[in-house]
Amino acid sequence: MNKTTIASTSIRGPADHEIRNQIVAAANQHFSQYGYSKTTVSDLAKAIGFSKAYIYKFFDSKQAIGEAICANCLAQMIAAVEQEINVGGLTPTERLRRLLKTLVATGVNLFFSERKLYDIAAFAASENWPCAQQYDALIRDFVVQIVREGRELGEFERKTPLDETVDAIHLALRPFVNPLLLQYNLDVVEVAPVLTSNLILRSLMP
Amino acid sequence: MNKTTIASTSIRGPADHEIRNQIVAAANQHFSQYGYSKTTVSDLAKAIGFSKAYIYKFFDSKQAIGEAICANCLAQMIAAVEQEINVGGLTPTERLRRLLKTLVATGVNLFFSERKLYDIAAFAASENWPCAQQYDALIRDFVVQIVREGRELGEFERKTPLDETVDAIHLALRPFVNPLLLQYNLDVVEVAPVLTSNLILRSLMP
Repeated sequence: MNKTTIASTSIRGPADHEIRNQIVAAANQHFSQYGYSKTTVSDLAKAIGFSKAYIYKFFDSKQAIGEAICANCLAQMIAAVEQEINVGGLTPTERLRRLLKTLVATGVNLFFSERKLYDIAAFAASENWPCAQQYDALIRDFVVQIVREGRELGEFERKTPLDETVDAIHLALRPFVNPLLLQYNLDVVEVAPVLTSNLILRSLMP
Repeated sequence: MNKTTIASTSIRGPADHEIRNQIVAAANQHFSQYGYSKTTVSDLAKAIGFSKAYIYKFFDSKQAIGEAICANCLAQMIAAVEQEINVGGLTPTERLRRLLKTLVATGVNLFFSERKLYDIAAFAASENWPCAQQYDALIRDFVVQIVREGRELGEFERKTPLDETVDAIHLALRPFVNPLLLQYNLDVVEVAPVLTSNLILRSLMP
């Protein structure tokens, strides 16, 4: 399977330049420790040992570095979801359950084990950064695939227009997909995946 | 119909004391202008023209005043919901649609027209104040009533245990009921009530 990539915008020079990766890795570490909002490009330059001007050769702003980090992080979450749901022999019902379960688990894990990265993802969601939009679009694509397959196999109802079904499910997943919302849903993450999957699956019954 | 009340805790002296109401009204105005977190009991005393000690005769903390205000505000929202859904001749399906629509409308209205009050409600939700818990429990009660009636009339399915159905719907309403979540859902409030009502109603089909 190809590795899912979520592109970051506003980057300069060749995309796979070694220095760019070094800057992103170092910034990732720096942001993880001090947080995105409290770090300036000058702080970053000092910590990495590059000049500010040199960093600006590769990224046109702090946000561009933040987007690259956020894109990596979201791509990892998408990869985790793909690994769980694209297993041969799973029914659409099982894939939907796994989608929700993995989304919640990876989001909660990020919150508790990489809090500063989580905060960048939440900031990306609040500012509607391209990487956050792409992440959301990829989640919707998973829903489309699962619903379409379930309809083809006769496992899900077909009366409701596909777009409406998908939009409604996508909306029901939002409290667990969007990091701005998930942080206020931590008290229900134990029960939410099963309750919400069951509700969605009842709504899909033929 | 009796007026719904949401009790605030930590109040002192007779509950319907005129002075208490004066303090709450004045604090409401003061918080609405300056915000809850930035106001101290001293500020409040000065603004109202009472001594701090006198205010402490009626409320044991700033939070107790905040809770009284929040309880009034949430009780008004509950009253608005009751007025919309407890109309004779409505089917359970229609009542569920109205529940969601009114919850979103009153929440959004509070956000845009009484932002500082909304912030108190969000703070109450984050701190799990008793008034926020009661509000949430009253919303759940509405769901119980509607689902139970729909089952009795044969309009909704009866295979799923009542508690599971109610918990799942209550959870699906959470992004629009909880002010901490609603503030990040403002971009979907136009489409959310219909999409979510339809999803829930499909899940309830016999």
